[in-house]
Amino acid sequence: MTNNVNRQFLIAAHPKGMLKASDFQYHETEIPAPGEGEVLVRVLMVAVEPALRGIMVEDPNNPAGLKPGDVMSAIAAGEVVRSNNPAVAEGDRVQGLFGFSDYAVTHPEAFLFSKIPDGVPLEASLYVFDTSGLTAYLGMMEIGQPLAGEHVLVSAAAGAVGSLAVQMAKISGAKVVGIAGTDEKCQWLTDKLGLDGAINYRSEDVGSRIETLLPGGIDIYFDNVGGEILDAALGTLRMGSRVILCGRISEYANTGEPFEPTNAARLINNSLRMERLVLFNHTDRFDDWRTVMADWISEGRLQYTIDMLDGFENLPRGLIRLFTGENKGKQLIRIA
Amino acid sequence: MTNNVNRQFLIAAHPKGMLKASDFQYHETEIPAPGEGEVLVRVLMVAVEPALRGIMVEDPNNPAGLKPGDVMSAIAAGEVVRSNNPAVAEGDRVQGLFGFSDYAVTHPEAFLFSKIPDGVPLEASLYVFDTSGLTAYLGMMEIGQPLAGEHVLVSAAAGAVGSLAVQMAKISGAKVVGIAGTDEKCQWLTDKLGLDGAINYRSEDVGSRIETLLPGGIDIYFDNVGGEILDAALGTLRMGSRVILCGRISEYANTGEPFEPTNAARLINNSLRMERLVLFNHTDRFDDWRTVMADWISEGRLQYTIDMLDGFENLPRGLIRLFTGENKGKQLIRIA
Repeated sequence: MTNNVNRQFLIAAHPKGMLKASDFQYHETEIPAPGEGEVLVRVLMVAVEPALRGIMVEDPNNPAGLKPGDVMSAIAAGEVVRSNNPAVAEGDRVQGLFGFSDYAVTHPEAFLFSKIPDGVPLEASLYVFDTSGLTAYLGMMEIGQPLAGEHVLVSAAAGAVGSLAVQMAKISGAKVVGIAGTDEKCQWLTDKLGLDGAINYRSEDVGSRIETLLPGGIDIYFDNVGGEILDAALGTLRMGSRVILCGRISEYANTGEPFEPTNAARLINNSLRMERLVLFNHTDRFDDWRTVMADWISEGRLQYTIDMLDGFENLPRGLIRLFTGENKGKQLIRIA
Repeated sequence: MTNNVNRQFLIAAHPKGMLKASDFQYHETEIPAPGEGEVLVRVLMVAVEPALRGIMVEDPNNPAGLKPGDVMSAIAAGEVVRSNNPAVAEGDRVQGLFGFSDYAVTHPEAFLFSKIPDGVPLEASLYVFDTSGLTAYLGMMEIGQPLAGEHVLVSAAAGAVGSLAVQMAKISGAKVVGIAGTDEKCQWLTDKLGLDGAINYRSEDVGSRIETLLPGGIDIYFDNVGGEILDAALGTLRMGSRVILCGRISEYANTGEPFEPTNAARLINNSLRMERLVLFNHTDRFDDWRTVMADWISEGRLQYTIDMLDGFENLPRGLIRLFTGENKGKQLIRIA
């Protein structure tokens, strides 16, 4: 990187089906200058999450979505290198919607802008204390509310949200099984995160494995994938169960009708609650949840795993990996 | 009634299928004497609700349920006629779990015991400010959260809970359709409660009538009946919808497997939330909700309709009527 160039990735096309490298276009521009009240941030690390695909697709109901030629959006962390605002000083570590870009002009009131507290690593700020961690907390602790001894099942359990959600269920004393896509991830879930069992959905029959590992069925299902795995879990819901609909990553590449689960009647007959998680309906609770999670981390009860890619050129690949199941823990890309 | 006799109805048998008169047994005993710290209440008015059948059935999971020979349980209101407790005075109006009985011995810390505030009619205390009203508020306002212009559907809309829930949705500015079992009830819903439409499920096709009255589908479905009506409503859920599972009165007489809705996949694909209402998980909010409802009543925005039966001998009949769809509004039985 030369000092005058601001590298970016733009959206080349609205994605259709699986996200691919050609949906992005590399672009160079000049480093922007902050206006009155604005600050210039040098981006150091970018976070990606499956929801980013959602803002790339063409959606007549969301005319504010991204269009070809727009800089790809993402939450990122960086350092203030110029400030025209007394609320932020040069050298402050900040995060916000800086996108796939070396530099971003922003201001302290921008949506999702925040200063990163002293002592908090950028990785933790972009992961546990941001959307992935808050999503895991809302889903497992507020919607699911696991009780000691209950049977908890989490899909995409080795992913950013899932790997925190399973640990929260363990902290609550539940019996926890995770679903992942490789034997290595399954082993990591049981050996490193202490789960009571793991299911490799690529090589095992999910429904019968649930029955073996969680006899009698499940009390909480935290769904990150949708599709056939969701359907298998629905088939094992017991009376009083709760279902958290967090993501449908298995279905994002569908271009036809949504998957129709065959076991949904069991949800109606047995479950206490199903909730599609909408994180930003709960902003007033974020700081409370961050405090609890910070305590768990300092007590050694909650570990967070980063899957780090290095290099600006890896930004599109970092996002695409989420949909092919390559990442373990939170996918971040260090760009400087 | 002579002055020495305490009339009661006992459970004669665990009900199987539809509740019937022979499930109850008339019984006379002496008026009980309150012990130390206890009070004697003369019951004036008894409230019945469908949930009472649930505590009558044989349930291996609920060994604390009622058995043949037990006095039938119910919330009732009355007057303290003897008090051995300084917290309650003779002449105080109180309510609690006094059951199908002329007299009850209780104490101020008993579950669901409360003094009835001055100025509140017994009917309101047993209805709007008790389980039926609180259930309607929890379901519609806290779980459903209707927005102005949204499409709201309520089954058993002429019943105790439904007739309050529909009015709350109207107060919120929603377009509201109720389902009931007679043309007279349907006319009452539109003419007296101001609903935008009503469906007679006995003479009309519920699914096609929903599509006609609420084109595009529904945002909130408040279910008091379960079964085929629930299934029809599930088939019209639009994106972002909420489903409140409050009662399954159409299924209580089933002795076989639970009804399997065929449209439940739409709930998974379209809905934001499904919740089975559990009123007593929210006791800390009851007084807030009562305050809001009292304001609505005093402003003339919320009306409550009582279906009153007179006479002790009508206690079983009052309860049975709930399951045959005879009552309009809240079923109460005045016994003194």
